[in-house]
Order: sequence, then structure tokens, then C-alpha cells
Amino acid sequence: MSNTKPADTLGGMVNGFDGSAIDSLSSRAVDIVHRRQRSLGPAYKLFYQRPVEFVRGDGIHLFDAEGQRYLDAYNNVTSVGHCNARVVEAVTAQVATLNTNTRYLDRGLVAYAERLLGTHDPALQNAMFTCTGSEAIDLALRVTRFATGRQGVIVTTNAYHGITTAASEISPSLGRHVALAPEVRVVPAPTEGVPEMSDRFAADVRAAVEDLDRHGHGIAALVVDTVFSSDGLRPDPAGFLRPAVEIVQGAGGVFVADEVQPGFARTGDAFWGYQRHGVHPDIAVMGKPMGNGMPIAGIAARPELLREFGELTRYFNTFGGNTVSVAAAAAVLDVILEDDLMANSRDMGARMLDGIRSVFADDAGATGIRGAGLYAAVDIVDPETGAPSRERATALVNCMRDRNVLISATGPEGSTLKVRPPLIATPGDIDTLLDALDDTVAALR
Amino acid sequence: MSNTKPADTLGGMVNGFDGSAIDSLSSRAVDIVHRRQRSLGPAYKLFYQRPVEFVRGDGIHLFDAEGQRYLDAYNNVTSVGHCNARVVEAVTAQVATLNTNTRYLDRGLVAYAERLLGTHDPALQNAMFTCTGSEAIDLALRVTRFATGRQGVIVTTNAYHGITTAASEISPSLGRHVALAPEVRVVPAPTEGVPEMSDRFAADVRAAVEDLDRHGHGIAALVVDTVFSSDGLRPDPAGFLRPAVEIVQGAGGVFVADEVQPGFARTGDAFWGYQRHGVHPDIAVMGKPMGNGMPIAGIAARPELLREFGELTRYFNTFGGNTVSVAAAAAVLDVILEDDLMANSRDMGARMLDGIRSVFADDAGATGIRGAGLYAAVDIVDPETGAPSRERATALVNCMRDRNVLISATGPEGSTLKVRPPLIATPGDIDTLLDALDDTVAALR
Repeated sequence: MSNTKPADTLGGMVNGFDGSAIDSLSSRAVDIVHRRQRSLGPAYKLFYQRPVEFVRGDGIHLFDAEGQRYLDAYNNVTSVGHCNARVVEAVTAQVATLNTNTRYLDRGLVAYAERLLGTHDPALQNAMFTCTGSEAIDLALRVTRFATGRQGVIVTTNAYHGITTAASEISPSLGRHVALAPEVRVVPAPTEGVPEMSDRFAADVRAAVEDLDRHGHGIAALVVDTVFSSDGLRPDPAGFLRPAVEIVQGAGGVFVADEVQPGFARTGDAFWGYQRHGVHPDIAVMGKPMGNGMPIAGIAARPELLREFGELTRYFNTFGGNTVSVAAAAAVLDVILEDDLMANSRDMGARMLDGIRSVFADDAGATGIRGAGLYAAVDIVDPETGAPSRERATALVNCMRDRNVLISATGPEGSTLKVRPPLIATPGDIDTLLDALDDTVAALR
Repeated sequence: MSNTKPADTLGGMVNGFDGSAIDSLSSRAVDIVHRRQRSLGPAYKLFYQRPVEFVRGDGIHLFDAEGQRYLDAYNNVTSVGHCNARVVEAVTAQVATLNTNTRYLDRGLVAYAERLLGTHDPALQNAMFTCTGSEAIDLALRVTRFATGRQGVIVTTNAYHGITTAASEISPSLGRHVALAPEVRVVPAPTEGVPEMSDRFAADVRAAVEDLDRHGHGIAALVVDTVFSSDGLRPDPAGFLRPAVEIVQGAGGVFVADEVQPGFARTGDAFWGYQRHGVHPDIAVMGKPMGNGMPIAGIAARPELLREFGELTRYFNTFGGNTVSVAAAAAVLDVILEDDLMANSRDMGARMLDGIRSVFADDAGATGIRGAGLYAAVDIVDPETGAPSRERATALVNCMRDRNVLISATGPEGSTLKVRPPLIATPGDIDTLLDALDDTVAALR
């Protein structure tokens, strides 16, 4: 098929559709693939060697156009479940009543902001709302640079923080075609098992701070995903972040905790990833699961950082904190807290991690297995050489998809399985996932 | 009230609440104001000297917490009317069925993209979706700079293009506290009545192109709102943009038409503002009214510009083009086309503009009166000196609000009335608006 892109034009995307299996798709799917290519262009990439058309979602399940049911162990946006009844109800009621912006008085907006801030470090007293995590990271950068008068930002080797110009310039995982800003320094992500990982990370951050000073940029911010998702998931041991954060804050820099992945109770240990580490961010960035799919994201920040920025720069985001998105977000917060989904993430996460370890026991093709709550990672390697194997990881992901279980892969080599069911997963769901994984591993052995 | 900001900390915002009239607010409103200040911080500004709490919307009307009805002649996001039944129905159905991202096959997404592109210049064959206009402008800048390998951008004196880092750096209207990027050049907005406005604008653009070349930046893009909203609304004579656009495109630069304000039939003359001018943009940026309040925005672009960017940079916006926002946007497009709201905007806009001219006839306090469809601007001046009067414009806006009609002000001096009812306005609505304006002008005389 002449229009389909070869694999090397996926821009380094993990688990992308490369067109090689297009002949196995239904004519309906092929039609959509072609129309996408024509109307959306080459930036729009699909998951899986056999892309899926979903037409309905319900809890942990997605249903395709042929009525097949899939267990969604990937999408962390819908963390309280696809079409969660309370979120649907909140959106349905609000969209029929009023949807407007934050330049009018709105009790729902302030009530949500107050409750959201209540889950955070007490020093984070102001919330600002955007639509996407990228916008929230971009705002955090604007605030940080405005407040400190400095430009330097430290991130980790395979960090991903978003797709605005400024966010992409601090996202090395986007690959060599997306240039980092001159005032960005990259440090290795902490690696579990490396002796003194905490001290080593702190030493790397200290060196980067000195280098930024030496170049006249100064240290504006250390920005890290507090579970290092795109670096392959690095949650443990909790607390290892502390020395690095103290170095940055001690140098007058700002610690920005990117909570888009670990936030909203995902890790099972704490509502926010930074809380697991016992660190005190100056800004926390929130996104993805915040509205269970309705576009809402934002920052929680120390008021001192926002004072001049807020008074002088006229920041206004038309859709940020709109009435409908806030209604959805408030319902999400209700569900997480009232149903104690943090405890469920911890308990089901433990069950999932134990099960994954059993599946891969005595398997030389899987080395590191890590997790935090309902977020697990498995490093897939070539069993002969021990080298990271993107090919094998991709094969596992696609075999799971063929068994109607959705997972994906991540990490600097694209060789780390990423397993991330919604926070509402039940023991039965976890067992279904594990059964499919067991079958898949056996089939590929 | 100690917490309330004095007027000079509104960051140059036009029609902002400065706290001076807080004693006239209800205790409920005062409570929300205080809680906003505590939880949202100083960036969150309110409209009007007496901010309004809206609790319900219906068509052209908003209703406050005390049951009072307001005619909304300001909010261009809800251009098919607050809580438009077809949009509400589309959102309600979709949110209960499926809300996911663009990495799965979705007929609704491609069908919408195809229809949307059908309204555009035939050369714009690819659509990409974001959540906000700021993200769409930021994406247009990324695409433009990637494709041209140049950095220079030309904008007008009081241009506003958004609030990401990169968007704010091309938005001089944000004021002196938000620095323009070194590779940005500012040219005067075209002014109706100035002889040879088209040639003059072209000459200014040509000089900026040469200056960008001389500094080694090169011309990446000319970015203009095709009705120059924040420059005080400069729609006529249609066609005046052509020479400037040809200069930029002739120099290998890209013309980015910012259609967030004029797009989706607002001007009554054409579906897109650039079409009124008979120019051919390389990228059109869309936003605000696209989903009638549901967060969706995007770009329509020439495929040549997107080819390498799309293949190599791995652009993915999690909520951009999500299933629910696309359902809303598709309903908005249906309503505009099926109800021929472009014709309504033209006809009601003409009625409105005639009426405004009558109201201000023989009034030395109003000089320029301009409009395009349901978007009108009135330059308010001091009747003695003829100098632009922000004070009088603000007084007019607030007196209108006291008569339950919502308008605002804009322009480099904040002295230009901005009147922008939804595209569904009826003759009766326009007459209500004009009656209130007549009363207000008489009261302030």
C-alpha cells in the first residue's frame, strides 16, 4: 500500500502501526486508515500492528466495531473507568446547564480548586487550570522563569513533558529531530539496583546546576515525572529524589513535579507521586486522568511563585477550568476518594505485580520488573544476549492485543512493557490480564 | 478589602474587576471573590466592576444566581448559543458511549476532519487537532519553523495569539512584562482610512522580512488574525492583506491565518476570515467557537508543510481530537451550515452595525465604527480632546452590564467597544442590544 509509512517514519514511536499488517485488517478499517492519512496527515499514528476501532467503552472494557470486548490495561486517562457513571452524569447535567469560562464567578470552580489543593502539600495553595498537561508544563515553565529570572531546566535522559514548543524543548524522549533548548541539561534517570542511586542522581543534578550557572542560564527548575514513566518507570526506593530536590531548591531553583503519570492515586502509595518521596515541590503539574477524558489539566503552586506572574502577565486560558471540564474533574475526585481507589490501586497493583513476576519467573527474556500501584513495567531483553529487545516487547504487546488485552511499551529502548489498568480494576480483571500475559509469553517462547 | 488588587495590577486587562465596587456585591459574590483569590491566585481576573455569577445559559441568554437574564453579546465561544440543543445532545450521547484518543481508528474523527477541510482553501488538505487556540498557534509555529528551518515571525502591534511560551512571545498585546522573542518583528496593524493601507502594510511587512534576513533569523511566518481583533477590529476593505501575504510567501515564508476570532462564519462574508481577503494561507489556526465551549482547536495545513514534521517529531495531543470534543465540533458545523448562520451573521450584523451607527450619530465620543458580521467595534474617545478614552469605554461596558447586556472592550488603548453576539442572534435580540446601548449612551452623556 503506497500510502502507508514504513516503520522508520514512526518518529521513534513505540507500538506504532507501521502498515506492514494492513492486509489483515477489515475493509472498514483499511478505509479509515486511508482517510486518516489523507485528512490528518503523517503526524497521526495508530497503536498496534493491527489498529483497533473502538466504538464503546464501559469500565475497564472497550468494545470494537465487531462487538469484541477488550480489557484496557493501558489507558491511564480513563482511570475511573470508561464512561464512569458519575462522570457521565456530571458532564451530562453541566453541558445542558452552563459551560463558560473563569472570568465569571463560579462556585463549582473554587470548590473544586479548594478540594484539589487539599490533596496536595500544604505549601501549594494556588491552582491554575489548563486543558492539557502540555499546557500545564508550559505554564510551569513560564511561571518558573518569570519568578526566578533564570532559564535553565534539568530533565532526565528519556523525559517526556509535552508537545508545546517549550515543553518539547525539555522532552529528550521526542528524539533527535526535536531540539532541546540550549538552556536544558539532561541527567541520567535514577536506576534501581545501581548502588547509591539517590546520591548519584543528586550528584548529576548538582553538576547540571553548576554547568547552567557557568553558562549564565542559572537554574530555573528541575522537572521530573516523579515515577519516571518514559524512562521506563523508576518508582523505588521511595525517597531517592530528596537529595536532588534539596540541591535545586537550595540553589534557588524550583522543583516542578510532573504528576501527569503518577498523580491522582495511580501509585497506590499516595495521591501524588512526590508525596511517596517525601519531597516538597514548588509546582505540581497535573493532567491526563484529572477529568477522565474531559480536557482539564493544571498546576498547583506556591503562591509566592505566582504573585508577580499572575498580576503582570495576563494569563487567561479560555477553556482552562471551563464549567463542564470542572464538573467532570470534581466527579473524578469524588470517585477516587469515596471509593478509595488509592487503596484499590495499591492492592490490585500488588496482585498484578506478583502475578507478572510469576509469569516471567525463570524467563531469561524479562529482567527488571517494577511497579507502583496499578502501573507496572517489565524490561524485555533478548534471552541470548540480555540486550534490550524492542522487537520482543513489540511482539508481546501485539500478541496481547490479539488476545484482547491492551498494554503498550515505553523506555529509552522501547523495550519495557507498560501495564496500566484503570484504578477500578477488580481481582478478576487482574487475573484476566495475567492469564493473557501467561498465554502470550508461552506462545512467544 | 485588603485582598483586592488595585487596578494597576490587572496586567493591562481591559474590563477587569479591580475590586473598587466590591461593597456593591452580594455576600455570596464576595465569598466567591475571596475564595477565588485564595485558591486560584492573582492570575484569575474577573470581568466587570460588578462581576457576575452565571448559573445557566440558554441560546443568547445567560442567567445569574438571582435569576436575572442577560443578553450575551460578548462570548464568541458559544457561537451557536449557550447549551445549543444539538451540541448538548451530541456531547451527552458521546460521553456515555466512548471518549478516547486519536491512536485508535475513529470514523467520527476522519469524517469531521474531511468536512472541516471542505470549508477551507483546497490547498489545506490536512487537519490536526489540539484543545486550545494557544496550542494550535504553538503547533503552527513548530510546524513552520521545522519546515522552513527559519525562526522569524511577523505580527501586528497589538496582536494576541495565545498563552503558551511560544504563543506569548508573538503576542505584543500581553504587555511589557511578557517579552517578545528576539526573532519576532512587530508591524503596525492596517488602519482603515489611512491612505493606501494595503500598500503601507505590505511595505512594513517587506521591511520586517528584510530585517529578519539581516539578523540571520529568516522569515518563517507572517501570523495575523485576519480581522485584527485585538488591534481593534480591522476587517475592511477586504483584500487589503493580499500584497503582504504575497511578499511573505514570495520570500519562502509561511502565511499563518489566525482564524480563532473570524473563523466559523463569524464575519458573515465567508466561513474563514482569510477567504474575505482572497488570500491563500499555508496554515489556518482554528479555535474558540469550534466546539461551542468543548475544548477543541486545531490547524488546517498544506500537506507539504506537515510531511517531515509529522513523520519525525512524534506530535501527539492526548485530548486533541478526543471523541467527545469531536462530536461537539461536528454538531457545531452541522448547525452553522444547516441553519445558514453565516447568512444570519451577515444580516444581523448589518442590522447591528446600522443600529450602532444610529445610536452614536452626532456623538463626538465615538469615532470609528466598524464591523464584519456579528462582530462590531466602536472607538470611544474623549469628546473634548478626541483622544482614545479607556475610561469612557469601560464605563459604557459596565453600564451595559448593569442593563443586563454583556459586551466588552479591546484595542491597543482598551478604548474600543467589542460587540459580538452569537451567530444565532435574532432581530429582536439585536434590538434589545441597541435599546440598551442607546440608554447607556444617553445616561453617560
